[in-house]
Amino acid sequence: MKTFKLVIEYDGTDFVGWQVQPNGRSVQGVLQAALAQLTGSNVSVVGAGRTDAGVHARGQVAHIRVETALDAEAILHGLNSLLPEDVVVHDVVQVDNTFHARYSARERTYRYIIVRHRTAIDRRIAWYVKYRLNVELMQKAASMILGVHDFRSFAAAKTETKNFHCTVTYSEWTEVEDKLVYEIRSNRFLHGMVRALVGTMVDIGRGHIALEEFPRILESRNRSRAGISAPSHGLVLESVRY
Amino acid sequence: MKTFKLVIEYDGTDFVGWQVQPNGRSVQGVLQAALAQLTGSNVSVVGAGRTDAGVHARGQVAHIRVETALDAEAILHGLNSLLPEDVVVHDVVQVDNTFHARYSARERTYRYIIVRHRTAIDRRIAWYVKYRLNVELMQKAASMILGVHDFRSFAAAKTETKNFHCTVTYSEWTEVEDKLVYEIRSNRFLHGMVRALVGTMVDIGRGHIALEEFPRILESRNRSRAGISAPSHGLVLESVRY
Repeated sequence: MKTFKLVIEYDGTDFVGWQVQPNGRSVQGVLQAALAQLTGSNVSVVGAGRTDAGVHARGQVAHIRVETALDAEAILHGLNSLLPEDVVVHDVVQVDNTFHARYSARERTYRYIIVRHRTAIDRRIAWYVKYRLNVELMQKAASMILGVHDFRSFAAAKTETKNFHCTVTYSEWTEVEDKLVYEIRSNRFLHGMVRALVGTMVDIGRGHIALEEFPRILESRNRSRAGISAPSHGLVLESVRY
Repeated sequence: MKTFKLVIEYDGTDFVGWQVQPNGRSVQGVLQAALAQLTGSNVSVVGAGRTDAGVHARGQVAHIRVETALDAEAILHGLNSLLPEDVVVHDVVQVDNTFHARYSARERTYRYIIVRHRTAIDRRIAWYVKYRLNVELMQKAASMILGVHDFRSFAAAKTETKNFHCTVTYSEWTEVEDKLVYEIRSNRFLHGMVRALVGTMVDIGRGHIALEEFPRILESRNRSRAGISAPSHGLVLESVRY
């Protein structure tokens, strides 16, 4: 039995999300299909994070455990020749059998891209926000979530988790040309958390929610107090650190 | 009769190109359909450059001449509400009736994007080149075309033009993260010219064509002497200056 760690990029546009579902095309599903073809056996692919429908990844990490004579290099090239063009494997390395893509992960980085002009070319990877935004206020809100907090207010209502604490180590808005990029790093993320945070900070930036309200929303532990959920297509899982 | 100048962005992936053709979806065609709906009359849209199938634009310019009570602002918003999501109009201004998008243009800027790693997210807007490239040699070739030259060696074989002279005012390769971006500005471009130049410079960068050969190719006025044509999906018409 060998364990391999895979680093995967995908364009989430035409997927129902990371996870295999009864209906629809999932990233995990196309990876498992390619691995079945390559290795001749059913291999389950365990991802570091289960991204939602439409969410992209540049550095999703997954592990597989498989009986195979193939080495890491052969799996890398084999997978890339079998995968559809919206999924690319960037790296495969053999790792210790104790490695677990999800449980061994120490930090994940997500990025969210907002564009302030309607765009055709970037429409699949950025959210077009037509309102004038006060980025300084958005940055002040972003700074308030640094450290350990209970993020229940920013978690999807339906969730199996009981622990809502996350340790946020980076939370910054940056202006890059006409784009507004939010980057957040945390040891873990709750389901829907980045999109709820971005949506709420945009509500602050456009003056719909007062900045002073933001810490109160966080403390309320009540999702209905927070703002809208930003659309999935602006979100990218950038990397996972072990 | 009013003349309007339009600045247009499009994702060329799902178009047969700028120009209306007997079969297939063209950018000019979807713009004319939207204008017919908006103004109630057949309006022809004249573009500054006829981009090929798969080529994108961030700043294509076009003009329309139309009898209408609508002002520029109404045309801008009307078009954007009617156009499909892969075409966006960024600006509409009323201009003098002598304005011609193609003949009044003084300079056009194109950009070509190469990625050195296979990519899922950027696959529609960048050419993945797997060979190791010597960017210094490519830049030396790029500098050799500055000024006035006869570019027949880099023009599509089938062309109606008799004048092959272009005045290139900027020609630079830049490395941006893992991307390689080529930008070229010229008073005019021949059909297929940027793609033939990029393909030939990539052949130089990977050692298939010697740098010393490049000025000889240029002087030969013979398309078959130049290198391959880079694929259309890496090319973007960035802007047109008047």
